[in-house]
Amino acid sequence: MITKRQFLQYIGSVAGAAGVYRSMAALGMLGVSSLTGCSSPSAVSQGLGDGKRVVILGAGIAGLTAAYELDRLGYACTILEATARAGGRNLTVRHGDVIEEFSGMQRVKFDNEAYLYANMGPARIPYHHRTILDYCKTFGVELEVFTNDNRAAFFQAPGSFDNQPVVARQLHTDQRGYIAELLAKAVQRNALDQELTAEDRERLLSMLADFGNLEDDYMYKGSGRAGYQGDHINKGLDGDAMPVEPLGLRQVLGFDKADLWWTLRFSHGINQNPTLFQPVGGMDMIVEAFEERVGHLIRYESIVDGIWNKTEGGRSFVSVDYSYRGEVMESFVADFAICTIPTTVLKDIDNNFSGTTRTAIDEKKYDAAVKIAFQAKRRFWEEDHYIYGGISWTTHNDIQQIWYPANGYHRAKGVILGAYVFGEDEFDRDFALRFAKMSHSQRLEHALTSGERIHPGYRNELEVNTGVSRAWSEVPFQKGSWPSAPVPIEALEMPDGAVYFAGDLTSALTGWQEGSAQSALATVEAINDRVMT
Amino acid sequence: MITKRQFLQYIGSVAGAAGVYRSMAALGMLGVSSLTGCSSPSAVSQGLGDGKRVVILGAGIAGLTAAYELDRLGYACTILEATARAGGRNLTVRHGDVIEEFSGMQRVKFDNEAYLYANMGPARIPYHHRTILDYCKTFGVELEVFTNDNRAAFFQAPGSFDNQPVVARQLHTDQRGYIAELLAKAVQRNALDQELTAEDRERLLSMLADFGNLEDDYMYKGSGRAGYQGDHINKGLDGDAMPVEPLGLRQVLGFDKADLWWTLRFSHGINQNPTLFQPVGGMDMIVEAFEERVGHLIRYESIVDGIWNKTEGGRSFVSVDYSYRGEVMESFVADFAICTIPTTVLKDIDNNFSGTTRTAIDEKKYDAAVKIAFQAKRRFWEEDHYIYGGISWTTHNDIQQIWYPANGYHRAKGVILGAYVFGEDEFDRDFALRFAKMSHSQRLEHALTSGERIHPGYRNELEVNTGVSRAWSEVPFQKGSWPSAPVPIEALEMPDGAVYFAGDLTSALTGWQEGSAQSALATVEAINDRVMT
Repeated sequence: MITKRQFLQYIGSVAGAAGVYRSMAALGMLGVSSLTGCSSPSAVSQGLGDGKRVVILGAGIAGLTAAYELDRLGYACTILEATARAGGRNLTVRHGDVIEEFSGMQRVKFDNEAYLYANMGPARIPYHHRTILDYCKTFGVELEVFTNDNRAAFFQAPGSFDNQPVVARQLHTDQRGYIAELLAKAVQRNALDQELTAEDRERLLSMLADFGNLEDDYMYKGSGRAGYQGDHINKGLDGDAMPVEPLGLRQVLGFDKADLWWTLRFSHGINQNPTLFQPVGGMDMIVEAFEERVGHLIRYESIVDGIWNKTEGGRSFVSVDYSYRGEVMESFVADFAICTIPTTVLKDIDNNFSGTTRTAIDEKKYDAAVKIAFQAKRRFWEEDHYIYGGISWTTHNDIQQIWYPANGYHRAKGVILGAYVFGEDEFDRDFALRFAKMSHSQRLEHALTSGERIHPGYRNELEVNTGVSRAWSEVPFQKGSWPSAPVPIEALEMPDGAVYFAGDLTSALTGWQEGSAQSALATVEAINDRVMT
Repeated sequence: MITKRQFLQYIGSVAGAAGVYRSMAALGMLGVSSLTGCSSPSAVSQGLGDGKRVVILGAGIAGLTAAYELDRLGYACTILEATARAGGRNLTVRHGDVIEEFSGMQRVKFDNEAYLYANMGPARIPYHHRTILDYCKTFGVELEVFTNDNRAAFFQAPGSFDNQPVVARQLHTDQRGYIAELLAKAVQRNALDQELTAEDRERLLSMLADFGNLEDDYMYKGSGRAGYQGDHINKGLDGDAMPVEPLGLRQVLGFDKADLWWTLRFSHGINQNPTLFQPVGGMDMIVEAFEERVGHLIRYESIVDGIWNKTEGGRSFVSVDYSYRGEVMESFVADFAICTIPTTVLKDIDNNFSGTTRTAIDEKKYDAAVKIAFQAKRRFWEEDHYIYGGISWTTHNDIQQIWYPANGYHRAKGVILGAYVFGEDEFDRDFALRFAKMSHSQRLEHALTSGERIHPGYRNELEVNTGVSRAWSEVPFQKGSWPSAPVPIEALEMPDGAVYFAGDLTSALTGWQEGSAQSALATVEAINDRVMT
């Protein structure tokens, strides 16, 4: 029996300090709870895998993470991946790539330049997604800032602001201005005396004056925070430019016609507030880093069609039926399986899971989400509007968002995200499904027409034939963008016999790589605990 | 006589499209107002400089810009620069650099790594500072995002929050929450019925619920926007983490004891709101790019001690007395001079300016500002607090700010800005002067002690002997950080005989490179207009 210290010395000798750190985390020696999301540190476990065999179904972020950690703990891992590439929903498209939906293939026609790509799946990493960020650090994946809140971008919604786009700095500034003015009035009218002492009132008024940039009489009359008149936005050389005219209070309030208040505070969300990152060169740099380490464990184009818990001679194990390029292979037998297949796909794979597990799988629905990207002839958003990265917002019931690239600043061309659509309304209308059900060329056409409302002349600025669309509900082996409810289903947090479930489907961070990686670490720990006891 | 079109064709043939663009701007053909800050386009001017000689005093951003543009228009330019380097207040310090104050020299002891530097002068470029950004684009200076608003950074002020640092996401979220709750109450108590229709009320309440993340009863009871309990900040794997407890209303209001409301809305200022940039590798990459183009026109270590308007035989010109390394040189004679010397220094240089000009020079005061930087043994802000770039704030009357580097993420070490102090209070106490009057080692000691309040253990995390301090009021040939009032003095916007004044001192964007560059372009245009007519 090797001691824990001996094991760590061994890892240190082959993998350096980072390896020890990661192994200690996997072994629960660093309070792995902070990595796996367990609410209390689990009992410290240890093990070398003992040559136990684990089959991992799916080479997305969860599968890659599990393989990387189990491999280092001495388990014999194999990943069965249905497609010809790793990454799953972590998908970056570039010149020459071919991507598939049920309805057919698209070839990506961006120019062959490293900076011209689009992240069609996850595209940002918040500062507190420690599992993913720690892997980026360990693997040397270089990061650059991703901008959500860009005050030069636009808000546009039918029925609001005469249907014109309004620049973000204006709407944010005026919103704060009127809120502060109205509250100051109420305070001065003694409407809040039951909540506020005389001292509170004074402090609150001083806070509001600053919060909203109010005049001495606590009235909001516009603010240079929204920019200055003329071409400069700033005060200009002479300093005699006046602040832009504010929107009227009623214009600001009218923004609710589009039910879009949430877009104004989007970057306050805990997973959306600064600092956020993207890997330099595309989100799949993370996949590439994993593949460098565990790529040899992946069997690509291996489609699973049966998962069976079995027992023979008192030994329980799992047997996985699969085919490789249409050819039925010998079933893959392992001590454990980690299944990261989305439930949308898993529900049609034969199995002998318990009734509870099968119900959970059947009930776990996935959202749809659509992204559409175009290469632009020039970076008109930078040249004409001084927009560097960030998001313009329009209605849910349309393209919803335009994303400006957070890389390649000042270069000749750029890839703009012309739509990012998700979510439903109170009538259960799934906005993304509208796009998903269109043909590829209809999607592009719709995105071009809608983008025109934010950027007049849009269509002519883009290289329309480079358009790429991705409707995740229409993608083989995915059939959805992320699990609908951000709550892990209890039944799938438990193993069913020798089969464990991992991926964002067993996480509260659905749709985030962090959820996939956290759940993979928790699963590795659970298997290792079981092997050791 | 060459036509404008011929001239542009010529420029196009030698400098390409970018050259034509820049020249057209300098000639007023692109509506140069957008570059120079004139409130209306000036009469279109043209010219090839005609071999006229211009002497430029100072190789800061204004001097470099003027030289670059005049040189390309065919003027014979020379820059007299007092020090051995170009850039002026654009100062990036690295391993082995030696910087000077009146009290002595400091040698920079950062490790010899490209990512370990500190911008001791300007450090950010807002998206609308078009002149500087256009030069970055034209020269191929690579940019990366600079983060002002980082929700993982801290606010700390004596007398507030029990003197403890509060994380930015908490204070911002709670501030918005209580403002929304109080205003919703006032609305429901009909305190604002004279301003609001029934429909307005409804819309406002819906806006406030979202703005502050209020409960159904419009009460603020905390929000996940401030983060979740436990180690994750986000919801974690299981999703059962509760939002952190909110600060009390009175605690939030108590922040005003430190008169620091402005720090909470700092990133809303028009020159501080996203997106902001820094050049990759240090702010002086801009200086380097200019030097590549006009470095041969600079005479370094040339100290001016007299500026004289002269007339001989009906021809007026300027004669500049200067010494080179202590040796008096023959006076430099030119058709025009562009003086970018700070008034703090210029007022002691002999001249025969008009009384109006001399008064203006005497009256133009400069602020003090101090920056202090340390190399850290490890990036504890990233590793322990998940802070990537951005600013922690403490009181005016202290180090005021700690800046975390917006580069080198996840690398071994990092250079942290341990103080950035400027400004005065209502008693005319200049906070920066407190630091400026200390010895270098006293400044470091003070910064270490104060930083400890935000980051317990701070001193031990830093390589204390690497500390660099820069008090701009104590720097030879600068004697100040930026002109105090952000309003150009009219007398210096006009030439005095053949002498023109440029730099942020003739701009409303004092303390910004943009002001320097805009004023240089306006001066180039004014000289060219004069030559052509």
